[in-house]
Amino acid sequence: MAFRIPQIAPLGRPDLSAALRDKLDQKTKPLGSLGRIEALAHQLGMVLGTGTPVLQAPQVLVCAADHGLAAQGISAYPSDVTWQMVENFLGGGAAVSVLARQHGLALTVVDCGVRHDFAPRDGLIIAKPASGTADALLGPAMTAEQCQQALANGAAIVSQLPGNTLLLGEMGIGNTSAASMLLARLAGMDIVTCVGAGTGLDAPGVARKLEVLRAVLALHDKAVAPLEALAAFGGFEIATLVGAALQAASENRIILVDGFITGAAVLVAHALQPAMLERCVFAHRSAEQAHIRMLAFLGQAPLVDLELRLGEGSGAALVFPLLQSACLILSEMASFASAGVSQRSDGA
Amino acid sequence: MAFRIPQIAPLGRPDLSAALRDKLDQKTKPLGSLGRIEALAHQLGMVLGTGTPVLQAPQVLVCAADHGLAAQGISAYPSDVTWQMVENFLGGGAAVSVLARQHGLALTVVDCGVRHDFAPRDGLIIAKPASGTADALLGPAMTAEQCQQALANGAAIVSQLPGNTLLLGEMGIGNTSAASMLLARLAGMDIVTCVGAGTGLDAPGVARKLEVLRAVLALHDKAVAPLEALAAFGGFEIATLVGAALQAASENRIILVDGFITGAAVLVAHALQPAMLERCVFAHRSAEQAHIRMLAFLGQAPLVDLELRLGEGSGAALVFPLLQSACLILSEMASFASAGVSQRSDGA
Repeated sequence: MAFRIPQIAPLGRPDLSAALRDKLDQKTKPLGSLGRIEALAHQLGMVLGTGTPVLQAPQVLVCAADHGLAAQGISAYPSDVTWQMVENFLGGGAAVSVLARQHGLALTVVDCGVRHDFAPRDGLIIAKPASGTADALLGPAMTAEQCQQALANGAAIVSQLPGNTLLLGEMGIGNTSAASMLLARLAGMDIVTCVGAGTGLDAPGVARKLEVLRAVLALHDKAVAPLEALAAFGGFEIATLVGAALQAASENRIILVDGFITGAAVLVAHALQPAMLERCVFAHRSAEQAHIRMLAFLGQAPLVDLELRLGEGSGAALVFPLLQSACLILSEMASFASAGVSQRSDGA
Repeated sequence: MAFRIPQIAPLGRPDLSAALRDKLDQKTKPLGSLGRIEALAHQLGMVLGTGTPVLQAPQVLVCAADHGLAAQGISAYPSDVTWQMVENFLGGGAAVSVLARQHGLALTVVDCGVRHDFAPRDGLIIAKPASGTADALLGPAMTAEQCQQALANGAAIVSQLPGNTLLLGEMGIGNTSAASMLLARLAGMDIVTCVGAGTGLDAPGVARKLEVLRAVLALHDKAVAPLEALAAFGGFEIATLVGAALQAASENRIILVDGFITGAAVLVAHALQPAMLERCVFAHRSAEQAHIRMLAFLGQAPLVDLELRLGEGSGAALVFPLLQSACLILSEMASFASAGVSQRSDGA
């Protein structure tokens, strides 16, 4: 199944931008005093095309898959944790499950290529080109066809989800390695600046991981185009998220990006359709050390830094209420005129 | 009415501390991967004395008062904005009103010394030693008796509020000046490092403010004890918040501190009873430039930095869901054992 990359136009609308700015400036507060929340309100209004944005039926999409490269000992945890955590997401006991429940977010888990056969149930979608990627140290993590399939799966899944707000999450033992290699290749950075401890490698573990990733990058030195790099390094959950993010952007949904792995999916999507980035809100700065470089490359600032490094979409779910607050500031706060509050002494 | 400073003991409980740490470590996530949220969960458990803390009937307390020093032109806004914003809080149109409603927080506004006669109504408490402080450039902002009265008012108000969680907010044109002087005096810092733009002064305005504050500090150079400094510089809303914070700490309530002004109240309370600080969570780093110095002096790190400089308790209300998340992580997340998830390959 071939994936057709949707064309994503810049939001434009200078009229709406000015109207949103003016509306925020008329609210009963010193100019700009709600800082990042004002910028967020402006962005949400722009993406949803209205002065009174409302986040409707927000969806957490957690894409999970296994990585052949995990056989090279690049993670602190065994690959079995991937399927076990999928069960935990569905059972309601994972961090993202708890946080989604807290904020009334619908949670959909996608088996994008986990090495496990899940019993079908509500909230689980099976959309796997294969049971795990191949070992990228031996060859491409996936074929071009599998990559297309995963992209198409992500787009199709999002097109079936209700609402106008999508939170991206992921699970896959070994997937910080794929994300680091995508960052190195697509941003032209040395891999040493792109590698971190993942779920908790010690220093020798990180050194080993670095050695492996260098070898993988060398093996696939011709994979420089975004989708070739994606196929070379994996994983299926990242490819599915790329398709999901492109589809969501094409529908002008708000895309709330979690951490380093979902950031790598956005990195690929951005390389294909730069204007998709205007629909993205970056939830937090991850403790995975290369994340801030990834965000800087994209020219983006995360909302918060809570030293998270869990993934799952947990950081996106944690900050979700800030997006709701930004909307409410626009729709419910009084203006100086409506509340009868005096403006500045100097009229500024 | 004399205020008796409550004795506030360190939380102690190394047993509970270890149990909370162990409980967090058993949750299905890499060790420490929820970063600041884990530290927050630990603190909330310690303050509430349980492994499953629940935030009950959270209260936003917004203390408002006018400042005699405002006559010296140290704010971008006229003093009338204080009473107008109190009306806005009560009318539901202010940022803190909107955010309190979003999160189901009860909102109580206290007229601690506004130059205005408010009609009585639900949600408003009148507890004013006087209608505004005196001009601190001419003499102490308040008498020792008025200071004691404001402290006692704050304590009495909190003792009547339900719940175990208190969010501190404030309103008072001119009150960044009082907060800056309290920081300079109690932390032994040069006033030039403690002054900022407040609600939006331009550079000449900040220079003028600095000149005024230097003169006020010189006039009251003997006011070095915490309550003498408080009486010298004001304001009534800060003094009421000091009493409120001490009472809340003595009852082991969680105290969620907003920004620079409420931080100044905590600075005074901490000088009187250092262990009260263990009950405080600092919501955000304010854009008021001296705030980060105040936090560093207290040895505290704020949860987020959203470039806010509004006050009202708006920053505290914005981050409130993070505290709820921290509680839910403790009470609802599965453990490795309960979810059947494998631990690390290396057993660490």
